[in-house]
Amino acid sequence: MKVAKFGGSSVANAEQIKKVAAIIKQDQERKVVVVSAPGKRDENDTKVTDLLIKLADACLNGESGEKELVHVVKRYQSIAEELNLSEKIVRIIEEDLKARMASSKEDSRIFLDLLKASGEDNNAKLIAAYFQSIDLEAEYIDPKEAGLYVSDEPGNAQVLEESYIRLSHLKDHKKIVVFPGFFGYSKEGVLVTFPRGGSDITGSILAAAVQADLYENFTDVDSVFAANPTVVHNPVKIKKMTYREMRELSYAGFSVFHDEALIPAFKNKIPVCVKNTNNPSSSGTMIISEREYFLNPVIGIAADEGFATIYVRKYLMNREVGFGRRLLQILEDEGISYEHIPSGIDDTSVILREEQLNEEKEKRIVERIKSELEVDDVYFEHGFAMIMIVGEGMHNTIGLSARATAALSKANVNIEMINQGSSEVSLGLAVHQEDASASVKALYEEFFGGVKEETVS
Amino acid sequence: MKVAKFGGSSVANAEQIKKVAAIIKQDQERKVVVVSAPGKRDENDTKVTDLLIKLADACLNGESGEKELVHVVKRYQSIAEELNLSEKIVRIIEEDLKARMASSKEDSRIFLDLLKASGEDNNAKLIAAYFQSIDLEAEYIDPKEAGLYVSDEPGNAQVLEESYIRLSHLKDHKKIVVFPGFFGYSKEGVLVTFPRGGSDITGSILAAAVQADLYENFTDVDSVFAANPTVVHNPVKIKKMTYREMRELSYAGFSVFHDEALIPAFKNKIPVCVKNTNNPSSSGTMIISEREYFLNPVIGIAADEGFATIYVRKYLMNREVGFGRRLLQILEDEGISYEHIPSGIDDTSVILREEQLNEEKEKRIVERIKSELEVDDVYFEHGFAMIMIVGEGMHNTIGLSARATAALSKANVNIEMINQGSSEVSLGLAVHQEDASASVKALYEEFFGGVKEETVS
Repeated sequence: MKVAKFGGSSVANAEQIKKVAAIIKQDQERKVVVVSAPGKRDENDTKVTDLLIKLADACLNGESGEKELVHVVKRYQSIAEELNLSEKIVRIIEEDLKARMASSKEDSRIFLDLLKASGEDNNAKLIAAYFQSIDLEAEYIDPKEAGLYVSDEPGNAQVLEESYIRLSHLKDHKKIVVFPGFFGYSKEGVLVTFPRGGSDITGSILAAAVQADLYENFTDVDSVFAANPTVVHNPVKIKKMTYREMRELSYAGFSVFHDEALIPAFKNKIPVCVKNTNNPSSSGTMIISEREYFLNPVIGIAADEGFATIYVRKYLMNREVGFGRRLLQILEDEGISYEHIPSGIDDTSVILREEQLNEEKEKRIVERIKSELEVDDVYFEHGFAMIMIVGEGMHNTIGLSARATAALSKANVNIEMINQGSSEVSLGLAVHQEDASASVKALYEEFFGGVKEETVS
Repeated sequence: MKVAKFGGSSVANAEQIKKVAAIIKQDQERKVVVVSAPGKRDENDTKVTDLLIKLADACLNGESGEKELVHVVKRYQSIAEELNLSEKIVRIIEEDLKARMASSKEDSRIFLDLLKASGEDNNAKLIAAYFQSIDLEAEYIDPKEAGLYVSDEPGNAQVLEESYIRLSHLKDHKKIVVFPGFFGYSKEGVLVTFPRGGSDITGSILAAAVQADLYENFTDVDSVFAANPTVVHNPVKIKKMTYREMRELSYAGFSVFHDEALIPAFKNKIPVCVKNTNNPSSSGTMIISEREYFLNPVIGIAADEGFATIYVRKYLMNREVGFGRRLLQILEDEGISYEHIPSGIDDTSVILREEQLNEEKEKRIVERIKSELEVDDVYFEHGFAMIMIVGEGMHNTIGLSARATAALSKANVNIEMINQGSSEVSLGLAVHQEDASASVKALYEEFFGGVKEETVS
């Protein structure tokens, strides 16, 4: 059996939902359907989730929220009408929303989660109703009843191990399961949402629980590309890639998946396929445990901005046992995680994500490093991008770093940092943020410039 | 004024000592002379320091040491005879050695230091006597009387700050100062030797104390070379280099100086000149605070063997605040310092010097990493070499890493690790030990292959 997850743009309006139904009809193995909340219908549209956040904010501000509620209900109403569904489903959704609005606002994070998650929950009810109306034997499944238990962290839920056994019963379900993405319930019965990429996580969990043969992730692109299509013109499509490759690429800016969403599928060795709702006959991109690699050791090039460095210099640093550990302790005390630590004899840099910093924290860190580590110099620098060149089999390819650095040199990009040596599937380079696009273009040209076919595996 | 230090081969026999005298006579600014113990006269000879270690061992084993004493005295005797000195100086040396042999053996390390240091001490007396015999106004100076105070660590003395003020009086000395290298005295009056490169340290301390215009370090090569002459045929001579460049190169295997020997000179901005006793008219290599750099950003290429790595892999490692710090804590608990920590998303490596390890330690470290950090995989790998490409102005040279990596790729060398990003004057690469010489040759060819002149600055 297959688990098929449909993203926001795939369920944004009646036309899209009809495509979803056709996809489900076309393959009887598609027994579990995970849906997102309705996304944008066009560039200037607002996602239902964003409408719901506005509704929650109004309620938390002591307003009635009536106006905001109307906006949300109207979206479902227009979809229901175009799908020729009865008024009944719209009334169910409206009553559900009103009940949520009336619930406790004591913990604003819990209230926000409750309102936000209704986007997926009610869309699942609506889609189940539509499937039934076209004689697809389907049923909305409540995550609470099905047993999707999660940790008690609003906006950052982690699935609890016991959920897998409870959810495994879904594989014996007679009808097609229509399951809302993005949330689960704590052991106390409180609704909690997943972090970024939440519906992908739900799909991944269900695929693992029912031991699916395939987890299909339907989105609005034909496949994962070897580079960002807004940077590189018409990049080649990736046909097959490994979980590790996907993880490295999404970590460094590829937005197809949040880099942790695939963990449940990965751990259970369930293949994942990225497909296009608008072009389901295209084979998409397969994400699997292992792949063969032939000519090209590189599968993709990603860039992510927003990195800062702390530079620390101290004469005879390399002789001081414990220096690095004490430096990292200071960062840890501020709750900061680091990415890389390139080091010389008398100096070391720490590369980290800027979002973790603010002026006050930086000042505190510099002061502590100065006074506790008695360094000769310490300062922050901002505005770096990390470029990741990713591919299985890169590790033992002689000349790969030479090709990469030569390409950047030709593009007149100064390399601030090179990180090679631990990961077997990636080479990381830091450059100034303003050089990020030029770097990706140059590296793409170097590693894919000669690729004639439309796809790489 | 200038401080001139002469190494073991420069004072190995009468012929060499005559060259030293000629060098001192030739420039009246050479007012402080630091001497080593007599070194090897030819390949199969034994250094006086090694004869003294044998003598000390014999005494510590309860033997009389008479036979070993004869060997040492004979070396001085043959020098004295060839220099036409009276028997008196040989008797002084013999009496001095007997007094040392008769001193307390309670702490064997102190006894060993006392015997070893006699090599320099007695050679200074002999050379002072020779200078006087040829009408050079010179005087042997006792480090104890002059005030060279050091920390109380046998074989690993560190100079005490107060020594600089005491030793500064030497600049007003009327006669040429002949000062033994390699040792000082603790505050309790116990003789303690410096670590490796000891006589260079003494010269560096004296140059700082008397605020010399120049610290000349006389050895048996015309200059520092851009690469190891036993690896690269006829490498170019370095005319001028900075302290930082010298430090990076000597750290990575250049044997001209121990990398900490120049600290006192460096801190006082005293220029250092490496010169050849056997060819004093050659300009040698100047080591200074800053230099201009023109065409070639690289000044030298060094290689050092004996590195190991610990590889650690754990899924989602990068999300775990404190992971790196806890890993370094385990190494610190074993008293181990590390060189570099290249890191991926889910894995990290620690590169360290093998000499710090043994089977038992490795086992303990692996066990602790496994149990305390709950990693998916951890193991040691051995037999790596670090290649350092060094040069001021490397940091902002676009394409430098590309040239380096391309050169290694052409030589069919697989790069295990690249470390660039913190030090502004070096690029570090790890390769398998058996590829070290091929790497140095390839990099030398890349960065110096086109250099027509005999020297680089």
